[in-house]
Amino acid sequence: MMKGNLDKGILLISCPDREGIVSAVSTFLFTNGANIIHSDQHSTDPVLGHFFMRIEFSYPQLNEQLGELKRAFEETAAPFQMEWSITASSKKTRLAIFATKEDHCLQELIWRWQLGELHAEIGMVISNHLDFKELTESAGIPFYHVPVTKDSKAQATAEHLHLLEEQQIDTVILARYMQIIPEEIINLYHNDIINIHHSFLPAFIGGHPYQQAFDRGVKIIGATAHYVNAKLDEGPIIEQDITRITHRYNVSDLKRHGKDIERIVLYRAVKWHLEKRVIVHGNKTIVFQ
Amino acid sequence: MMKGNLDKGILLISCPDREGIVSAVSTFLFTNGANIIHSDQHSTDPVLGHFFMRIEFSYPQLNEQLGELKRAFEETAAPFQMEWSITASSKKTRLAIFATKEDHCLQELIWRWQLGELHAEIGMVISNHLDFKELTESAGIPFYHVPVTKDSKAQATAEHLHLLEEQQIDTVILARYMQIIPEEIINLYHNDIINIHHSFLPAFIGGHPYQQAFDRGVKIIGATAHYVNAKLDEGPIIEQDITRITHRYNVSDLKRHGKDIERIVLYRAVKWHLEKRVIVHGNKTIVFQ
Amino acid sequence: MMKGNLDKGILLISCPDREGIVSAVSTFLFTNGANIIHSDQHSTDPVLGHFFMRIEFSYPQLNEQLGELKRAFEETAAPFQMEWSITASSKKTRLAIFATKEDHCLQELIWRWQLGELHAEIGMVISNHLDFKELTESAGIPFYHVPVTKDSKAQATAEHLHLLEEQQIDTVILARYMQIIPEEIINLYHNDIINIHHSFLPAFIGGHPYQQAFDRGVKIIGATAHYVNAKLDEGPIIEQDITRITHRYNVSDLKRHGKDIERIVLYRAVKWHLEKRVIVHGNKTIVFQ
Amino acid sequence: MMKGNLDKGILLISCPDREGIVSAVSTFLFTNGANIIHSDQHSTDPVLGHFFMRIEFSYPQLNEQLGELKRAFEETAAPFQMEWSITASSKKTRLAIFATKEDHCLQELIWRWQLGELHAEIGMVISNHLDFKELTESAGIPFYHVPVTKDSKAQATAEHLHLLEEQQIDTVILARYMQIIPEEIINLYHNDIINIHHSFLPAFIGGHPYQQAFDRGVKIIGATAHYVNAKLDEGPIIEQDITRITHRYNVSDLKRHGKDIERIVLYRAVKWHLEKRVIVHGNKTIVFQ
Repeated sequence: MMKGNLDKGILLISCPDREGIVSAVSTFLFTNGANIIHSDQHSTDPVLGHFFMRIEFSYPQLNEQLGELKRAFEETAAPFQMEWSITASSKKTRLAIFATKEDHCLQELIWRWQLGELHAEIGMVISNHLDFKELTESAGIPFYHVPVTKDSKAQATAEHLHLLEEQQIDTVILARYMQIIPEEIINLYHNDIINIHHSFLPAFIGGHPYQQAFDRGVKIIGATAHYVNAKLDEGPIIEQDITRITHRYNVSDLKRHGKDIERIVLYRAVKWHLEKRVIVHGNKTIVFQ
Repeated sequence: MMKGNLDKGILLISCPDREGIVSAVSTFLFTNGANIIHSDQHSTDPVLGHFFMRIEFSYPQLNEQLGELKRAFEETAAPFQMEWSITASSKKTRLAIFATKEDHCLQELIWRWQLGELHAEIGMVISNHLDFKELTESAGIPFYHVPVTKDSKAQATAEHLHLLEEQQIDTVILARYMQIIPEEIINLYHNDIINIHHSFLPAFIGGHPYQQAFDRGVKIIGATAHYVNAKLDEGPIIEQDITRITHRYNVSDLKRHGKDIERIVLYRAVKWHLEKRVIVHGNKTIVFQ
Repeated sequence: MMKGNLDKGILLISCPDREGIVSAVSTFLFTNGANIIHSDQHSTDPVLGHFFMRIEFSYPQLNEQLGELKRAFEETAAPFQMEWSITASSKKTRLAIFATKEDHCLQELIWRWQLGELHAEIGMVISNHLDFKELTESAGIPFYHVPVTKDSKAQATAEHLHLLEEQQIDTVILARYMQIIPEEIINLYHNDIINIHHSFLPAFIGGHPYQQAFDRGVKIIGATAHYVNAKLDEGPIIEQDITRITHRYNVSDLKRHGKDIERIVLYRAVKWHLEKRVIVHGNKTIVFQ
Repeated sequence: MMKGNLDKGILLISCPDREGIVSAVSTFLFTNGANIIHSDQHSTDPVLGHFFMRIEFSYPQLNEQLGELKRAFEETAAPFQMEWSITASSKKTRLAIFATKEDHCLQELIWRWQLGELHAEIGMVISNHLDFKELTESAGIPFYHVPVTKDSKAQATAEHLHLLEEQQIDTVILARYMQIIPEEIINLYHNDIINIHHSFLPAFIGGHPYQQAFDRGVKIIGATAHYVNAKLDEGPIIEQDITRITHRYNVSDLKRHGKDIERIVLYRAVKWHLEKRVIVHGNKTIVFQ
C-alpha cells in the first residue's frame, strides 16, 4: 500500500447529523488505503442538527487515483445525503485579486504568496487604476487595467468575466476593491469571492466606516473578511479581528491602524479558504483550524 | 509648604484650545503650593480645537483648603473659559447599583470594592427582584427591593428618586438592570449613570444581542460600558472589550463567555469614572489612563 | 438502541501513531451503540509519532454499562498499544483546593463552581492560615486548617494525606498556596495537581516574579497554570495568558493586574482538566478545546 | 508670534523629581512663543524619584531658531539638573538596517518607510549575505555586503564603522541580524541600536528560542525589541508582544507565526524611537505613547 508517492488530500463533508457517519467515513478511508493525518468535525446539534467534517489524509498516488477514489466514496456518501468534496493538495487554487488604490492588502497577499504561505497561484491582479501595475508585474503576476466608470460598467463586467474565464480563476479576492461586484460575477463565484470590510461587521455597514467609528467614539476598531453575496456587507463572515484605539486617534489614525488589521484578517481568511478549512452553511461559516 | 498632611486632589479642565493653558495652570498650582504628581492632556486640534486636562496633585491639608483653592483658581480659569472641577481624593463617590437577575456584574463590583479597587462607597443595591438580597447584605450593603411592573412604573421611579436622594447617591451603575431608566433619573444624573451593554456597540443594539450575534455568525463578541442618555444604547462609550468565539459556540456559550467580558468592562469603566479619568465631550469620552 | 437514558461519556486515547486507529475506534463505538458527539485528535507526526484522541459520545445507560463497555474496548485497544480511559460524564471529579493568604484564585474557583461552570465537587479547602474559613464555609465547603511550620512539615503532610484520602480527592488545586508540596503527595497525584504560577513561565521562575518582572522592565506580564511534578515550576504547562503593562506600573500595580490573569488562567486550566480535555505527554500537554 | 512657519519640536527631559518642574518648563515654552501640542510625564516616585517628560510643541521657524532656543533653555534646565534634548521634527533620523537571511523584519521596515510611517531616512542596509541586495536597491536604498567569518571579524567591524560614519547613521536596527555586534559599535551607539529577539524575554535567552519554546511546551510565544548593550539579550526592553499557540504547532509553525510578531514588535519599537517617545532609565524604558 505504501508504494508510490504519498500524496495528501482533503475530504470535506456536510450532511444531516445521525449516528455512524464518522465510523463509515473512517472505515472507507482505512479500507481504501488512506491514512488520516488530521480530522475535525462539528455538529450544530446531535439531534436533527447538521454535521460537518474535514479530514486531511495521505494516499498513495492520489493525483492519479483521485477520480477512482471519488467514485468509490459515492457509495459511502449517498445514504447519509452528504455534500462532499475530495481535493488533492497538489492542486493549487487560482486566484484573481481585485484592488483599487489602497495597497496594504494587495501587498500582504503578494508577500505571503512569495513566502509560500498561500497555497495558490495568483493568476492576475485586476484594477480600475494603474497604480499597482509595477508592484504586480515585478512579482511576476499579470496585471490587467479595467477602468470602471458609470457608463462603462457593463463593458467592465464583460471584460472581467472574459479574464476570469481565460485565466481559469477559482477564487476572487477583493483587496479593498472599491467597486460593486455585479450579480453576474457573484453568481458565478458562489462562496468563492472574499471581501475585506474595514469595520467590525455588523457595526458600520456601508461607506466610510472609520469616519463612522470616529463619530460614534468606539474604543475598538476592527475588520471583517467575508464571502460576497448579493447583499452588500452581509455575506458569511470568515474572520474578524480588532485593535484598541483611544480618544487620541483621529480618522486618519484609525485608517492607519485599521490597515494593519485589514491585511492580517484578509490574509487569514484567504489562507483558510485555500486550505479548505471553511465550510459555508446558511449565512455562517464553520472554520476548522 | 510641607507642613500639614499632603492630601491628593484631581483637577479636570475642558476648554477651547489656545496657547498658554498648561503654563497658566501649572504656574497656578506651583505658586499655590501644589505639587503635580501626574498630568495628562488632550487636544482635538491645536487650532480651534478643544483642550482637556487632568492633573493629580498633592496639597497640604487639601480637605480643609479646598474651598479657598477653588476660589483662587477661578481667576486662572475665567480668561480661558474653562469648565473645571477640583476634587479632593479623600472624597469617595457614593454609588447605587441597580441589578435584576444576572449576578456576574454585581458580584464583580462588590468583590472589587471589597478588595479596595473601587474608590467608592456603595450606598445601596436596588433590584426589581429579591434574588440578590442576601449577597448584598452579607457584604454589608443595604438592599432595596423595588418591583417594577407595567402599572407600577411611576411609583417605582418615585421610590428610586427618594432612595437616591436619601442615600446621597452620586453615580448610578446599571449592572445588567433589565428595566428602562426614566428620563427624570437620566436628567438628574447627567453623565453619572453607567450601563453595561452586552454587545460590541453599535453592533447589536437592542434586545438579545447574543442571539443576534449567533444569527449573524460573527467571530468575536464584545461588551460596552457607556453613560446613559435619553437614546437607548447610544450614550458616550467609556470602554469596550471583546473575546473570540468559534462556530462551536451556541447562544448559551456566547452568554457564558460574554459574562466574563461584561464584568471586566463594567469594572474598568466604573473604576475610571471614580478616579475622574473620564471626561465627556459631545457624545464621546476622553479617558485618561 | 435509543432505549434508556442517553448518558454522555468521554474516551481518551494515547498511542503510537499508525494507520487505522480512527477507523477502529469509531467502528467500535458505532457497533456498540455509542454516538460520537464530538471528536478531536492530534498526531505529533504521522510517521513514528504519537497519536492522541478525545471523543465525547452518548450511550444508553452508560452509568450502568460502563464496566462492560470498558471490557469490550480492551480488544480494540490492545493491538494499538493504547493507553486509554473511558469516563462517564455523570462522574464529578472531587477537588481539594489549597490556599494561603491571597483569595482571588480561591474566590474565582468557588464562584465558577457556584455558577455551575466547573464539573466538580469541591471536597474541601485546606489552608495553612485561618483567613478563608468563613469564605469557604459560607459556600458550604468544608474548611481544614493545617498549619505548616519548619518543624511541623512532616505532621502537616500526614494530615494532608489523611484528609485527601478521607475526602476521596481526585485532583488538588494549588490556588496560590505558598508552601512546597512534598514528593509523597506529588507522587500520589501524578498529573493531578494543578498550580498557578504568577509569571509567564519559564520567565521568572521562583520567588517574587512580579518584583523580577518590574526589575527587568518587561512590557507584558503573565501567569501559568501547570501540573506539579518534582521540579518546581517545571511541570507540564496547561494554560498561560498575559496582560500589557507600562512604565507607570509599580510592583503593587503588577500584582493587582496579575491577579486578574492568575484567576482566569487557573480557572481555565481547572475547567479543561475536569472536562478531560488535557492529556500529558512527556513534559507537555495536549489541550483539546 | 505667529509670523513665519510653525515648525514642530520635541523636548525630552529626565531629572530628579521635585516641585515646580512642569511649571518652570511650561512657562519657559509659553514665554518663548512655543505652543504645547502634547505633553506626557512620568515620575517613578514624587518623593526622591526620577521625573521624565516629553513635550511636543510648535514654534515659529524652529529650524532656524533651534540653537537659540536650546541656549535659552539651559537656564531653566540647570537648577533642576535636567538631562534634556530639543529636536526639530523636520530632522529625520538616519537608519542603518543590518539583516542576514530572514527578510520579514527588513521587508516590514522598508514597507512602513515607503508608506511614510517611519520618520527616518534609511541610509543603508548592511548584510553578511547577498540575498537582500535586490530587495533593498529596488526600494532605492544603498546595500552593502559585508561578509563576517571567524577570521574576518575585525575587518568587518572596521568596514561597519567606516560605513556608519560615512553614511552619518544615527540609529542601527538589527532586523534579525545573526552576528554579535562588537563592543566598539555598541559603545558608539549607546541606546541607539535596536534588536529584535525572537522570544518573550527573559524567557528563552540565547539561541534557537522557538526550539526552546517548543521543548518547554509553552502556550504563548512572543518577541522582544530592545536596545543593545554589552550583555546579550539583556538590554532595556522597548516593546513586546505575543501570540497564542497550541499543541498542534511544530517548530516551523512557531517560526512562521513568530515572524508576524517579530516584524510588528520591531516596527513599533523603531517607530517610537524615531518619534522620541522612548527614554532609557537604568535598564528600563519609559515609552510615552
